[in-house]
Formats: sequence, structure tokens, C-alpha cells
Amino acid sequence: MLKGHQTWVFPNKPTILSTGTVVGPFEGKGPLAEDYDLIHGDLWLGQDSYEKAEKKMMEEAFEIAIRKAGLQKQDIQFFLGGDLLNQIISSSFAARTLAVPYLGLFGACSTSMQSLALGALLVDSKSANYVLCGTASHNTAVEKQFRYPTEYGAQKPPTAQWTATAAGVALLGPEGDGPKVTSATIGRIVDMGISDPFNMGSAMAPAAVDTLTAHFRDLGISPQEYDLIATGDLARVGHQIARDLLIKHDLEIPEEIFTDCGILIYGEDQPVMAGGSGCGCSAAVAYGHILNRMKKGELKKVLIAATGALLSPLSYQQKESIPCIAYAVAIEA
Amino acid sequence: MLKGHQTWVFPNKPTILSTGTVVGPFEGKGPLAEDYDLIHGDLWLGQDSYEKAEKKMMEEAFEIAIRKAGLQKQDIQFFLGGDLLNQIISSSFAARTLAVPYLGLFGACSTSMQSLALGALLVDSKSANYVLCGTASHNTAVEKQFRYPTEYGAQKPPTAQWTATAAGVALLGPEGDGPKVTSATIGRIVDMGISDPFNMGSAMAPAAVDTLTAHFRDLGISPQEYDLIATGDLARVGHQIARDLLIKHDLEIPEEIFTDCGILIYGEDQPVMAGGSGCGCSAAVAYGHILNRMKKGELKKVLIAATGALLSPLSYQQKESIPCIAYAVAIEA
Repeated sequence: MLKGHQTWVFPNKPTILSTGTVVGPFEGKGPLAEDYDLIHGDLWLGQDSYEKAEKKMMEEAFEIAIRKAGLQKQDIQFFLGGDLLNQIISSSFAARTLAVPYLGLFGACSTSMQSLALGALLVDSKSANYVLCGTASHNTAVEKQFRYPTEYGAQKPPTAQWTATAAGVALLGPEGDGPKVTSATIGRIVDMGISDPFNMGSAMAPAAVDTLTAHFRDLGISPQEYDLIATGDLARVGHQIARDLLIKHDLEIPEEIFTDCGILIYGEDQPVMAGGSGCGCSAAVAYGHILNRMKKGELKKVLIAATGALLSPLSYQQKESIPCIAYAVAIEA
Repeated sequence: MLKGHQTWVFPNKPTILSTGTVVGPFEGKGPLAEDYDLIHGDLWLGQDSYEKAEKKMMEEAFEIAIRKAGLQKQDIQFFLGGDLLNQIISSSFAARTLAVPYLGLFGACSTSMQSLALGALLVDSKSANYVLCGTASHNTAVEKQFRYPTEYGAQKPPTAQWTATAAGVALLGPEGDGPKVTSATIGRIVDMGISDPFNMGSAMAPAAVDTLTAHFRDLGISPQEYDLIATGDLARVGHQIARDLLIKHDLEIPEEIFTDCGILIYGEDQPVMAGGSGCGCSAAVAYGHILNRMKKGELKKVLIAATGALLSPLSYQQKESIPCIAYAVAIEA
């Protein structure tokens, strides 16, 4: 049900029955290690390409989520997902393994909440019973495609972000135990003219602010409604900009409830420049760490605003700026 | 409302209020020229790159559809779309111009019906009033990305298809004059092991058959229910394979009602090998030619099964086969 301009309210409150999170070795050394279902010691996952490793992470996350929900693969009716690789091959090839009806999405790093929002709409409108929503990213596969193969050893500025090697999926159902998806705000493209792919946090921050202000306006609520509001992958530089911009929009989010998945995923001792990014970052942090905190009773209502930078290497080479978007999903224990 | 395994039935029957179709000079010389809203004489559309030309076609198709419906840009609530270019830049940059909430999709050439199916779900479930669904492709931009720049003059086998330079969008609303979207079948990935990107019709045919058989099974109807069933972009080679496979599945579609958008779009005298393809092909043929025939009263019920080959140049180089998908949408006058 549409409320305001761009927010869906889900009266039937679809349930997140289970989640699956799989990460690489570097993420496994981070502060959220205990929250992941599977930590790989090998960046290749035994595959002969990084792209295949990314696909394998997604397949493993599917399997874990399905098993944890006590379901079988054939119970799943739809898979909604995407990733950063060209033509979203990880998702499409993982969907081939899953062999269920598939809706491929592209929202770059915002795909986590884009897929959860659409998945919740499917379940809420009785267009599906069991839906898998998810995404993945692999550091070296993404670096190779968008910037340089890591073997080059290219230097990066402090505004750059580290693409997480991670997959996160949520299994939605119409009822059951688990947190409920109550609303979702669908973002618009916001582009403030930033064209530097090593400064995506700054490019994405205005999109996060646009979607967050729309969410509170459409629902007529204040940020204090939530115990935690997490942007996805703005990292340190972008998150501070978002904070400042929100104040300019007369929408101050108290510091103690406002965080960012790209800040949470790595420790202070990990050399990740401004912080984490990548499709799998907000997916693994939300479906691992944040939902675990909800299960422990530490959080009751959270809002996750995943952000995406919808550039391509070609649009950058053609001197285009970076169009950005954010999708915000509210989850209640 | 889900019926059977993978078909959505839309009890509120969302209306296609208007459409916009824009094509390039080669398509304008084809047999459906009278059905398009705008034919460009210049393949560049006055832009300095083919990618920007593709984006411009999509923007023009938006404008035409909005104007024909007697609406304003600010009436549109969501845009759902995608394209073949890496990171679907044409759609994301066109969405920036449109400045409305955006859901980026990737279904390769099936994106036309993937976006119409999801758009209809949004309107049917009262999650939106006015939704634009659409896609575009540009021959030279796509050839450059997936195969060779056309300037190389690389030869192609007779099974290859010609990527259409075309954009097609549909504007959906909850009620009004115009054909109604009554149901949609969401495809699964089907991959029979074909890995030749110059033979995509053969790769995609089994996916079309899988979705068509699911559609008739889920709804408990026969092909004779429709006045026209059009696959999207199988072209001559793939369409014949689909025909043969359907017979093996005991589902013979009478020849006089079974056609393909990739066959319809070009004339016998145009050197397009097996026929047309590309996101814009099924979109322009469906939203131009087929809906015009419905308006003239020649057709009452049609089913359009758009097909997509979800490969990337990288997956091909890594010796992967081509995962394919099809989405079928039923439209009633």
C-alpha cells in the first residue's frame, strides 16, 4: 500500500524467517565475525575465478537460509537479487542453481534493500509465499571490473572504500517467528555532480538523505521511532556528509542510533580507507549483525537505508557524474 | 495474486494508458515503421556517444508516453526498467532525468516484460498509481560491449541476431481507457548448455518454452485462449526450435497465432541474419505494433513472452554457457 509519495506500508508484515551470511577471510577478521554463518579462509573459495567465487558465496547463503528456516529448495517461489558484476552474472548463475522463478535487479550496493523491499511487496500482496532476497560482492572481482586488478597495486585516496567479500540473503515468508518487514521507501536518483569513483561515499550521501527524509515525511514519523538507523556503505566520509545534510534538512538523527554498514563491517586496525562498500556489505551487516541484535532483544525497530552508486566504468570514462540511489526498509522485532 | 507456481493474476487489471516507442533509422525502414511514435534518421541522435543516444531514446519514449496519457512528469510515481549496457546506465541516467523513484532491473532482452509484470503488480496491489515500465537498446553500443565494435566489420554466422536500436515504454495506471494487463508468468533460469553468443535464439528457446508451459499450466488454459502469442527476440532459428519443443511438451500453438518480435521487426530484405534482438526489440514491437493492432480491434487477447540471455562477455570468456529466462505477460483489449 502506497503511503505518501514513495513509501510502501506492508499491512501483512512479511516475516524474515531466516538469513544466510557468508564472508571472505578479511571480513572474518573484522569485528562482526561472530555474526556471520560462514567465514571462508580462501578468497577463491576453491573456484578458478573470483567471479565464480562470488557466485558460490551466494549459493552458500541460499543454502544456509533455506536450511535455517527448515524449508526445502522447492518451497522457494522466487529469488530477487543482483550484484555488481556486469550483467549481474553472480545472481543469474546462482539463480540457475536455485532453479526457481527469478527477478534480476540492479541497484549496485543498494540491491540488498531494493530486493528486500520488492520481496516484501510480493509476500505482502500474496504474490508469493517464500521469497529469497539477496546479493553478494567479491573484492577482487569488483576491483578488477570497476578499477584495476588488485595485482597492479594501484594506490587509493583516503576517501576510497573497500569492497566487501560477502553475501547476504533473507528468506521472507507470510508468517512465522522472526522480525517483520513493515515498510519500504523507494529512492529516486540523486546526482550532485560528483564523478570520482574513489569518493563514492560523498556521491551517495545525498541519495541516502533524500530517501531518509522521504521515509519520515511519507510516514509522518520522526527518527526517534527507530532504535537504529543504518545507512549502507557510505563509510566514514559519506556518513558524516549525510549527517550534516540531514541537519540542514531539519532532520537530526541522534548520534547513538545512527550508524553505517560500511563503518561497522571493518575494525579500526583494518586498512580499508574510509570503510567498506559493495553489495554484500549492507546485506551481510544487516542480515548478520543487525538482525542478530534484534534477536537478542537489543533492538526492536530498525531502518536500513542501503545506498548504491549506479555508475559504470564507461559512464566514468565518458565524463559522466555518478547517479546514486537509496532504498530504506523498516524491520520490527 | 499467485496462481499455480509462478503466475500472478491481477484482479484489478492495471491499464496500459499509453506507450512510447522510438527507433533508429534501420528499424524505421522495416515493416513496422508506421507503428512507431518517433523514427530517428541519425543513429547518434545528435549525441557524442552511442550510449548517450540509447539513453536519449529512452527519455524520448518517456516523454511521448506521458504526453499521450495527458499526464505530467510529476504524476509518475515509479519507473521500472533496465537495459543491456553494463550497470544498466541508460536506464539509470534516464531515471535521473525523470527524477521519480526507480527500480533498476536486469533481464537482458526480457526486461520489457519483466518490467511490465512488476509494474502491473505495483499498480494491482495499490503500491502505485502511475508507473512507467520500459527498456531500450542501441545496436552499435551493444555490439561494442558484447562482441566487436561494428567498425571492425567482423563477420557473423546466419544464427546471429541484429540488436535493434529501439526504446519502448508503457505507462500503467489503475483505470482508464486502454488494454489491461491481466496476468504475468515469472520465468526460471533455463540453460541447456549453449555457449555461443552468436546463437542466442537457440539458447533462449527452451526458456521461452518453460515459461509458456508454466503459464498455461498455472492458469489452466490453452494457447487458443489468445489471439496472438509472441515470443520476444528468438528470431527465425530460435522460434522454430521453440515451436518444435512445445510440440514435444504436448503444447502445440497454432501457426497463425504464434509469432516472434525478432521476426516481425525487420523485413525480408534487411540483412539481419536470423532476425532482431535487444531489449528494445520486444518493447517496441509490443508497445508499437501489437498494441496498435489491439486498438484497431484486430486482436483481443495477446500473450507476450519476452526472452533474455543473461550472459556477460566475461562469463563467455570463462567458458560458461548462457543462462536464459523468459517473462510472459497477458494483455486484454
